[in-house]
Amino acid sequence: MSRQRERGVTPQSEDFSAWYNELVVKAELVERGPAKGTMVIRPYGYRMWELLQSELDQRIKDTGHENAYFPLLIPQSYLTREAEHVEGFSPELAVVTHAGGKELDEPLVVRPTSETVIGEMMSRWISSHRDLPMLLNQWANVVRWEMRPRLLLRTTEFLWQEAHTAHVDEADAMRETMLGLEVYTQVARDVTAIPVVPGEKTPGERFAGAVRTYTIEGMMRDGRALQAGTSHYLGDNFARAFNIRYATESGELAYAHTTSWGMTTRMMGAVAMTHGDDQGLVLPPKVAPYQVVIVPIGKGEQLDTVVDAAKDLLSRLRSAGVRTHLDARTHLSPGFKFNQWELQGVPLRIELGPRDLAAGVGTLARRLGDGKEQIPLDTAPELIPSILQEFQDFLLQRATKFREAHTTVVSDWDAFTSAVAGGWALALHCGEGSCEDEIKADTAATPRCVPLDGERESGACVRCGKPSAYGKRVIFGRAY
Amino acid sequence: MSRQRERGVTPQSEDFSAWYNELVVKAELVERGPAKGTMVIRPYGYRMWELLQSELDQRIKDTGHENAYFPLLIPQSYLTREAEHVEGFSPELAVVTHAGGKELDEPLVVRPTSETVIGEMMSRWISSHRDLPMLLNQWANVVRWEMRPRLLLRTTEFLWQEAHTAHVDEADAMRETMLGLEVYTQVARDVTAIPVVPGEKTPGERFAGAVRTYTIEGMMRDGRALQAGTSHYLGDNFARAFNIRYATESGELAYAHTTSWGMTTRMMGAVAMTHGDDQGLVLPPKVAPYQVVIVPIGKGEQLDTVVDAAKDLLSRLRSAGVRTHLDARTHLSPGFKFNQWELQGVPLRIELGPRDLAAGVGTLARRLGDGKEQIPLDTAPELIPSILQEFQDFLLQRATKFREAHTTVVSDWDAFTSAVAGGWALALHCGEGSCEDEIKADTAATPRCVPLDGERESGACVRCGKPSAYGKRVIFGRAY
Repeated sequence: MSRQRERGVTPQSEDFSAWYNELVVKAELVERGPAKGTMVIRPYGYRMWELLQSELDQRIKDTGHENAYFPLLIPQSYLTREAEHVEGFSPELAVVTHAGGKELDEPLVVRPTSETVIGEMMSRWISSHRDLPMLLNQWANVVRWEMRPRLLLRTTEFLWQEAHTAHVDEADAMRETMLGLEVYTQVARDVTAIPVVPGEKTPGERFAGAVRTYTIEGMMRDGRALQAGTSHYLGDNFARAFNIRYATESGELAYAHTTSWGMTTRMMGAVAMTHGDDQGLVLPPKVAPYQVVIVPIGKGEQLDTVVDAAKDLLSRLRSAGVRTHLDARTHLSPGFKFNQWELQGVPLRIELGPRDLAAGVGTLARRLGDGKEQIPLDTAPELIPSILQEFQDFLLQRATKFREAHTTVVSDWDAFTSAVAGGWALALHCGEGSCEDEIKADTAATPRCVPLDGERESGACVRCGKPSAYGKRVIFGRAY
Repeated sequence: MSRQRERGVTPQSEDFSAWYNELVVKAELVERGPAKGTMVIRPYGYRMWELLQSELDQRIKDTGHENAYFPLLIPQSYLTREAEHVEGFSPELAVVTHAGGKELDEPLVVRPTSETVIGEMMSRWISSHRDLPMLLNQWANVVRWEMRPRLLLRTTEFLWQEAHTAHVDEADAMRETMLGLEVYTQVARDVTAIPVVPGEKTPGERFAGAVRTYTIEGMMRDGRALQAGTSHYLGDNFARAFNIRYATESGELAYAHTTSWGMTTRMMGAVAMTHGDDQGLVLPPKVAPYQVVIVPIGKGEQLDTVVDAAKDLLSRLRSAGVRTHLDARTHLSPGFKFNQWELQGVPLRIELGPRDLAAGVGTLARRLGDGKEQIPLDTAPELIPSILQEFQDFLLQRATKFREAHTTVVSDWDAFTSAVAGGWALALHCGEGSCEDEIKADTAATPRCVPLDGERESGACVRCGKPSAYGKRVIFGRAY
C-alpha cells in the first residue's frame, strides 16, 4: 500500500463502499468498538453529533415538546403487548438475563425503542383531556442486534432522539406526525444540506406497530437512498396495549392516539455519503466541528511572528462566532496538514505565511472549488460568516442537482432497472407486497416512499401491469 | 389521608426519609420505572438535569476536554483485567447473555462505568508523548444493580458524565485529578448552592481500581452526608491492564497514568435534600426550570385584562433571560397554584390581580422568606435577575451555616456518637479499616473524607486511641 493510500481513501468510483468504510474511520468520526457491531464515536464525530443535536433539540423544544428520560431496561413482557411490535423487534433484541449476581425472574430487554415503556408511563400520567396533547422527547441510546453492522448506518447501539406524543384523536395525532416529518425535513435541508424527499412508506416498509409511517429519504453519491428519519402515526395500537385512556370533555373514556418519531447518529453517515469526495469528508458548515482551520507557514523567527498573527486571527474569528482551529503543530508539514483537514472535511482553510502577513492578507482555500484567493486579515471576521453560508448553500444546491440528475420518471421495466442501477426511479406501482418482493429480488430496489408533493397520477404498475395504487408515483431505489 | 397530605408531603421532622421519597415524586422530578430499581426522569426533573449538565459541560470543555461516546455493552472479560475493579463491580453487573435470538459466545456487561472500554480504545489511540494528555469525557447512562434502590440517589440505571484522561506521569495525572475535583466543587457551590467539602477518601472508601479517590461531600438537612462527585487517580493500573503505552521524547515506552471523574443525576437528590422544606423543593435559580411563575388573579373580563398584562410581563422577562412560566389554567384556584409551585420549588412567584395592574405593580413572593412585596411591572425585567442572584446566594449561605452548625470537632467517643447522630464529626482516626468497621457497626457513621483544607493535626484515634493517620482530622458522618 502506498503512503498516499495509507493516508487517503479508496476513490469512490473504484469502490464506494470501501471509500465510506475507510473514510469514517480515517476522518476520525467513529471506530469499531470491542463487542461485535458496536461503535465508538470519537471527539471529532461526537462534536458533529452535538451540533446536529443542538439544532434538532432547539426545534423540538420550539414546537412545544419537553425532554424526559425513560429506563434502558424494559420487562420483556412489555414488548409482547403490541403484536406487530414484538414481531418486528424480537429478532433484534439484546436481553439481560442476569443481574446483581443472580438470574432474573423476568428477563429485561435493552430498549430497541421506547414505545412500550413510555406507553406504560403515559397510561399513569394521562387521565383527562386536559393532559393532552402530551408531547415528550428523549435523547438516548438504543440497541438493535445487527447481523450486518456498518459504522454509523447500522450499529448494534446507536444514539437518537425519539419523540413520543399522545393526542385526543387521529386528526391531532396526524398533525403531530406531519410536524415531526417537517422538523426532520428542515433539519436535513437547512443543517446538513441534504435535500431529502419527505413521503409515506408503503405498508411493507412500515414501523412495527404503526398505522402509517412517514420518512425522509436522501440520495447518496452512489445513487442509493438513505432513510434519514421517520415519523409514525400509531393509531390507538399502543394506547390499547398500555391502556392510555382519558376522560373526554363530556366525561367518557377514550383511547389516546399516539405518535413517535426518531432521528439517529446515522445522519452523520448520510452527511459523509451526500457531500464527501475522494479527498475525504466535505462538511456543511452548520455541523462542522471546525469551520475554519488556520495553518501558519514559515520557519524560525518568521514562524513565531506568523503564529502570533494566526492567534490573533483565531481569537477574532472565534469572537465572530466562527468555529476556528489553529493548527500550530511544528512536527508536521503544511502539506500534511492540508491533506488532513481536507480528509476531515473542514469547509475553509486559511494559510498564513510571512508574505501574506506583510500584505495583510491570508490565503483562503475552500474545501470545494478550484484555486485560492486572498482575504484581508482585518475584515476576515466580517467576511467569513457569509462565505460559510455560501458554502452551506452551495452544498445543498449541488446535492439537489445530483438527486434530480439521478431520478428518472419511468414507465416500463427496462427503464426502471436502468434507473435504479444508479439512482431512483419514479414509477407507478400496484401496491402489492408480492410485487414489491419480486422487484427487490430482481433489482435490489425497494419502494422508498410515496412523495408528499407527488402529482396525482394513475396507470399500470411498472412491474406487473395491474392498476396503480397510491394515486401517485412511488420512489424506488436501492437503499442503505 | 387528608386532602392536604395527599397534595403535600410528610414533614421533615416527622420522617425525613418519607419526606424525600414523597417529594421527588410529587414535585414531578422522577418516578419509579417498571423494572425494579429503575427511574423515569420527568420533564421537570429532566430540565433541571439539562441546566446542570450545560453548566458542567461548559466547564469540562473550557478546561480542554472533548466529549466522545463509547459502547454501552462491554465484553465481560474486559472487566476482569483489573483485579480490584472486577471485585468491586462484579456484584452490581447486569449481563446480556442473549442477543439477536441466540446465546452469545461471550456475555456482554452493561457498563457500570467505562474505564475498561475507554482503556482499550486509548491503547489504540495513544502511541507517542505527543498524544498526551488525552482528555476525554462522556455523557451516558450506566447500570449498577442496586439491592436497596432509592430514587435519584441509588437507581439501577443513572445518568452521568465520566471524564477519562491519560497523562505522561503521576504529576500530570494528579493535576488533572485535582482539576476534576475543583470543577465539581465549583459546580456544586456556584450552580446548585451546595457548600460541599472537597477531600480525599480513606483507603476503604476508594473507587475499585484507584490509587487515590477524592470526593466532594455535601451535608443534607437531616445531617447526613452525600457524596456528590468523585475524582480518581488510577495510577498505571488501567494502563497496565489495557496496555496504554507511549513513546517518550527519548523513545522509550512508558505506561500512561490515567484518571477518571464522575458526577451523576444524584445531584438532583442532593439539591432536594440540601434546600427543601416541608412545603417542598426549594430550587437554586441556576437549576430551576422556572425561575419565576406568574399567576394571574381575577374573574371574567377583568381576568382577560390581567392575562394580557401577564403575557406581556412573561415575554419581557423571557427577553431578559429569566426562565418564566405563566400559569393561566382556568380550572384551578390561585391557592392551588401557589401550593403547586411551592412544592416544585420555583424561586419567585408574581401574582397579578386587577388592583396590582391598576397600580402598575405585581405582588412578588419569594419561595423562602416571609411576606410579599410589590414590584413595578415596567422595571421588573431589570430587577428580577438580581433578586434571583440574591436568592441563589442566600441558599448557599444558609446551607453553609447549617453545615457549620452541624459539624463538631470531637476528641472523645461520647462527643463523636453525639455529633454523628445529627451531623458530622471532625475526628482524628488511626486509619485502620477494622477500626472504621467498628465505628460503622456502632454508629452507622463512615469516614466521608479527609478535607483538603484541614489543618495539620495529630493525636489519638477517637475510637481506639492509636496514633492518628492522615496528619489531619477526618469527617465522619452517616451517609446516603
